Order: sequence, then structure tokens, then C-alpha cells
Amino acid sequence: MRAVDVIMNKRAGKELSRQEIAFLIGGYVAGEIPDYQVSAWAMAVFFQGMSAAETAALTEVMLKSGAVMDLAGVPGPLVDKHSTGGVGDKTSLILAPLVASLGIRDPMMSGRALGHTGGTLDKLDAIPGYRTSLSADEFKKILVKDGFAMTGQTKDIVPADRLLYALRDVSGTVESIPLITASILSKKAAEGADSLVLDVKYGSGAFMKNPIEAEKLARSMVDTGSAMGKKIIALLTDMDEPLGKMVGNFLEVEECFECLDPRSAGSGIDPLSADLMEVTFALAARMLMLGGKAKNAAEGRALCENAIAGGRPKELFLANIVSQGGDVEKFLSLVGTYRSQHKAEITAPQDGYITRIDAWKIGHAGVELGIGRNRAGDPVSPVAGIEFHRKRGAAVKKGDPVMTVWAKDRPSLDAALPRLAEAVEYAENIPVARALVLKEIT
Amino acid sequence: MRAVDVIMNKRAGKELSRQEIAFLIGGYVAGEIPDYQVSAWAMAVFFQGMSAAETAALTEVMLKSGAVMDLAGVPGPLVDKHSTGGVGDKTSLILAPLVASLGIRDPMMSGRALGHTGGTLDKLDAIPGYRTSLSADEFKKILVKDGFAMTGQTKDIVPADRLLYALRDVSGTVESIPLITASILSKKAAEGADSLVLDVKYGSGAFMKNPIEAEKLARSMVDTGSAMGKKIIALLTDMDEPLGKMVGNFLEVEECFECLDPRSAGSGIDPLSADLMEVTFALAARMLMLGGKAKNAAEGRALCENAIAGGRPKELFLANIVSQGGDVEKFLSLVGTYRSQHKAEITAPQDGYITRIDAWKIGHAGVELGIGRNRAGDPVSPVAGIEFHRKRGAAVKKGDPVMTVWAKDRPSLDAALPRLAEAVEYAENIPVARALVLKEIT
Repeated sequence: MRAVDVIMNKRAGKELSRQEIAFLIGGYVAGEIPDYQVSAWAMAVFFQGMSAAETAALTEVMLKSGAVMDLAGVPGPLVDKHSTGGVGDKTSLILAPLVASLGIRDPMMSGRALGHTGGTLDKLDAIPGYRTSLSADEFKKILVKDGFAMTGQTKDIVPADRLLYALRDVSGTVESIPLITASILSKKAAEGADSLVLDVKYGSGAFMKNPIEAEKLARSMVDTGSAMGKKIIALLTDMDEPLGKMVGNFLEVEECFECLDPRSAGSGIDPLSADLMEVTFALAARMLMLGGKAKNAAEGRALCENAIAGGRPKELFLANIVSQGGDVEKFLSLVGTYRSQHKAEITAPQDGYITRIDAWKIGHAGVELGIGRNRAGDPVSPVAGIEFHRKRGAAVKKGDPVMTVWAKDRPSLDAALPRLAEAVEYAENIPVARALVLKEIT
Repeated sequence: MRAVDVIMNKRAGKELSRQEIAFLIGGYVAGEIPDYQVSAWAMAVFFQGMSAAETAALTEVMLKSGAVMDLAGVPGPLVDKHSTGGVGDKTSLILAPLVASLGIRDPMMSGRALGHTGGTLDKLDAIPGYRTSLSADEFKKILVKDGFAMTGQTKDIVPADRLLYALRDVSGTVESIPLITASILSKKAAEGADSLVLDVKYGSGAFMKNPIEAEKLARSMVDTGSAMGKKIIALLTDMDEPLGKMVGNFLEVEECFECLDPRSAGSGIDPLSADLMEVTFALAARMLMLGGKAKNAAEGRALCENAIAGGRPKELFLANIVSQGGDVEKFLSLVGTYRSQHKAEITAPQDGYITRIDAWKIGHAGVELGIGRNRAGDPVSPVAGIEFHRKRGAAVKKGDPVMTVWAKDRPSLDAALPRLAEAVEYAENIPVARALVLKEIT
């Protein structure tokens, strides 16, 4: 077999065999196939696509390039959730204790903030003492005890993805549905969950800007999972506006903790967190369905609402902080107060309605504030963030508060403020409603 | 400027600016842009194509990567011919002395056999003493004296093409019309001719298998030449059957010498060389037009026929052998006798008509015989070859001779014979005629 023939077969739109994919990607990881052949192949994939069988083969070849989490002995059902990323997207911190309280085990491996999107690990790091780098043993023990555990991916998980992603990043081949699918699914498969709920976001703050592209990705993931014998349900959810009322590291943990409070159940929920909970319940319901705990989404959602009212998810949330080395007393003392001193208000410049809060602009301004980072490895601030007082569709009078903003330092605040103000759009008429959960792909 | 943005612009189908192309390809040649970005870009070009302006910019960037032949002081008009390659394609050896006898100067830089296609330099090397590696000074002196000179490309001509071609060869991006165009035109432009006739071949023995693809390449070359201010005429010519009656190194020189004999003028030509001369005259007529020596193709052809009858092209052919170090007496003594001792005949297995002699199969069997090579640098034999006794359209009786075959050694002969026999197709009815010169593109 020759790599150039594999490239030319894909160039011609042929379906590659498992052997061809294993030869090319296995050879690349082993250092036997040079990067200039793999980048040309990736560009051919960009144009010609891959079938579900090809994508599954690629995913499995990538999976086998490294270690996998061995969850043998952990009682199931093991169900995880993955999001394609967004702004204020904090559903994981609510979902994990929520479904754990209903008998699902969620082995969650998360990432860090990059560019305009946030990262679960950075949020958890804002909890004093909380450790996000667990050993495999610790991870399994906590997963058994609390029903969920939160950690970062170790270096030995899917090294092929690190290699391939770095090459795609510089060769203009990131935006390929099958390559994105294999990248996500290989890492998720390495975590050892039995099944997976995918939150595929679309809109300005999402990787996919429109629902058509998002649906293609969702379809590719579900079909590839199916070809691998892994059950996946995908939801297309809106990410044109930040989710919930908080964007920031500690701020988002705080919002989640508040949403898990029994007083937040049913009509008690803060209206500014309603969108967050709608997406969270939709995802949780599918996790319960995949784990055999609910027959349909409506039943799943009712179970979730009852669970929160019963207080068990909140207890598990706090128990997990302890399990992962965090200081619960200190955490509780910081709730409502752990904010940077560099603070400002943004108010409405006119009467009317808020018609849009652009998630992409908020996310990028958030990097400026110290919430996120532009380069992997850069530090973030736990106390930088944004609290929204009004969101899309709200009526405003000139001078009404729209956001409170906290920055890591004064110059960052000054730089971010005009960009944050510009992210909010106003008009005289109330905007039409947007669907938060657009579609389910199974 | 970032290479990844240039790649993504091309991926999106945008027209790249001259600056973008110079940045990417100039940077590649300078070792500043890595091959994995250039191969991904080349694949994007394969799918999205390039405009004539882009191709001209690429050609010029490549041209500037190395030395150019300085023909200042050589009286013009300087007109060259380039063929996309074929089997038995020996027109250069007739064309050069022919148009030189009519006042055109042809600075000819040629290549070597590779795969199923022959190479002019290998044919010339079969002439005892003939030198195909001339210095620039020698090349110019012989060009002035004989009206043409024949040499190989020096290493310092268009190094960008060597780099880029080697990368395309292993990254599955050879078959891109604009990349092929820039590769050919950059080398031809470096030779210093004022204008160019292109012989774009189609058929089994050609690089382009069908006339539609050949016309695309011809159109790209003519338009790119125009964008560079260089006048180009392209002819689409048939290469489904080997051209003329001989395939081989010395054998092809011999056929050319015979075609230049005054006795071959007009109706004196061997019918088995008639196709060769039809293509040669068509190309020569365009060279004369480009050089201002003929108003149209008919006039050009008449001038060529008269010239051969007058004997001057034959004299120039022999004069050039002397100029380039060859031994004319020895050459003349070898004509008709310089053949390998490992010889066989192929005869018709049935009565009927020859309906096809597949140039691709003949070319590949020819590599076996020792005419060509599969790897650059491998030796070839001057005395291996094929003489056709009948070609397409001829009536045959079972047992009639179709080819005489000479091989470099016995095992090669044994291996090639069945493949050669298989290259000839027979039927009961006479085949429909094929056009030899299909179309002129200007």
C-alpha cells in the first residue's frame, strides 16, 4: 500500500477501506507517513467527505493510538455528555450531579477555555482546592462514590488527535465534518462511557455558525457512533446568546450551584437562568433515556425537576467538591462575593428591547476580561466575569443596567467595555422568539 | 500574511493575489513555509482550480526561483515547441532543423523517458558522441550557428518546480491543470524563447486520456501565456497509437533522419511515417506563424514540404550532430543496422483489420524492452526498440508481420512479447478514421 494511492482514492471520492485508513493514520502516528501526505489527505477529505463507516474506522484507529480509561468494575449505566462549546455553557456542572442523583454514572473528561469558548476545567479550578487532574484510580473511585467525576484528558489519551489536530490547524483543514467527528468521538470513546449525549451548538458563539452545518455534524456523529456500536443522541441547541446569566469561571460555578438549589425547582428558577435549565433538562432527559432511566424526554425532564426539588443533586455537587479536594466551607463563603475589584456596569443606551446579545463578541471580550485565553496554557482569572441583568427580548429604558462586568485588571476592563457594549443590540420592537433546542438527531 | 489563510482562501474558491502566491511558493522555496502547508494548498488547488492570472503569477514566481537562459544577442525569432509526451513522439528531432532551415531559431531543452513516455535526450544520446549537456555558452553558439540546439535542463532552472513536483508526486496533486500549466510554462519561459507551440496530446499514450481534459490544459496554457505576455498556440493531437513506424532510441533518430531526406518529401514519404509527418508539419506551420515566416497553417506547411525537398533540413540535422560532438560517419554507418541481437517478430493472429495499437501498452512494454525507464536515473538501451510493419486501419492476413521487436536482453524480450502482442487489437471491419490533429487553441 502507498500513501499517495490512499490520498488519490479519497481525492476521487472513493470510500477508503479500514486498512487504508489504518495504514495512513497509524503510519502517521508511528512517524512513518510524513505530515505533507496527511495534510493533503485531510484537504481531500474536506472536499470529498467520508462515509459513516470511514469515519468510524478513523475514530477507532485514532482511539487505538493511545490509552483508554478502563472503567471495568464501575457499575453502569455510564453515560456522558459532550458539547461542541459555547459562551456561558455550564450545563456539565449541573448535569453531572443531576443525572447521578437518578442512577446514571457520568465519567466526565473536560477541556479548557480557548478563544471565545469557555472550558469546564477552568470553572472547576475556581473552586478553592478543587483538583481537576485526577489519576485513573482516583477518577474511578470518585465516579463510584459520587456518581460522577470531573477530570482533564491525560496526555496518553488519543495522541493521534493531538498530532492530527495540530496539523489540521496549520493546513486549513479544521472545518471538516468527518475529521471533527473522529476527533470528538475518539476522545469520548477513550473515556469509557457506554453512550453519549451530544450538545451540538449553532449560532455566533458556536463552532458551527448555522443550524444546517450543526445538523450535518450531529448526523455524522450519531451515524459514526452507530457504526461503532455506540448509542448517541444529539441535540441541536442555540448558542447565539450566552447561556444563563453568568459568564466567568467562579461566576458560572455559582450559577450552577444556585440552579441545583431545591428552591430553584419548578417556578422558583431565576428567569435569567431559564434558558440554561431548558438546555440542561433536555440534555439530562436524553442521558436518562440512554441509561434506561426514562422512557422519553418528558418523563426524563419530570424526573430531573423532582430530583432538584428533593435536594440530592445539590448534595452530590458539594460531595464531589470534597471528593476532588475542594474546600466546601470556603466555597460557600465565596458565593455571591468572589468578584474582582475592577468592576463596571453597562447600561442600555436607549429605550426599547434587547434584540440580541452576540455570544461571539461576549466570548472574545471575555478573553480580554480574563475569563478565557487565546493561547493554550495562558492563565485565566477566577474572579473575572459578566453578570447579565437583562437578556434577549427584555424591554429596557435608557440607563437600565444590562451587565455587571468584572475584569482581572483595570486596563482589561477599559479595553473590554466598548466591545461588551457593542455586543448588545437594541430595537424598538420585541424580537421574535428563538428555539433553544431546535432538533433531536438519533 | 499567514500560509493557513492563503490555503483557506483557495479552499473557499477565492482568487489568490500575486502577493499571496509569492508568499506561499517563494516561502516554500526559501524553506520558510513547510511542505505540509504547500501540499494541502496544492490539494485545494486541485479542487478549486486557479484563474489565468493566478496561474501566471504562480508561473512567474516559479520562474524567478532560479536562473533563466539569457539569449540576448541571439537573433530571433526564437520559437520553441513543447509536447506533453507520448510514445514514438519524435517530432522535435524533425521540427528543429526544419524550422531552422526557414529562419526560426529553436532553443530546445528536453527531458528524458519516464514511465511509458519517451524522452528526446535519450534518443539523442543514442547518436555516437552526441552531447546533450551543453553549457549556456555552447548552447547559444550552436543555436546561432545551426538555428537550433538541443540540451537538457540544468539544475539551476526553476528549482521551485523540482521541489513542487516532488511534493505533488507524493501528495496526490499531480493532476491539476493550473499546477501542470505553471510547471511546464515556468520551465519553457526559463529557456528564453519568444513564443511557443504546444503539442497537447490525448489518448491512452498521453498524460491526458481524453480530448476534453487535453483541451482544458491547452486552454489553461494559452490563457496563462497570454496573461504573461507570451504568445502560445496549442494543438490537440492524437496519442492513442504510437506516432510513426519506430519506437526506440536510435530507431526514432533513424526515422527522423529518413523523414528529413529530400526523397521523403511529398508523396515519397513512407506511409508508416505519414502520421508523424502530419503532426510535425502542423506543429512546424504554427512555429513559422509565430515567427512571422508564414501567414497561415497552409502556407507554413507548403514552406515545410518545399524545405525538405530542398535538402537543407537534413544538412542542418547532420551539422548539429557535429556541433554537439557526434560522429556523423559512425551515425550514418549505424543507420539500418544499429539493433539489438535479441530480436523477435510479432505477427497477426487472425485475418481482418488492425483496429488499435494501444500506445500506453506499447510504452510500458517498451520500458521492459529497455527503451524507457520506470525510475529517473535508470539506464536505457540505444538498440532496443519496435518497428511497426502495419498500423491502425491496415488489412492483415493471419501470419502477416505486425512488429519487429528488439530488446536489451533475452529475458526482457520474453517478458515484453505477450504484452506487445496484447497491445494490438483486431476486428473484421475496418475501423473509423481518427483525426490526428483535432483542434487548434489560440
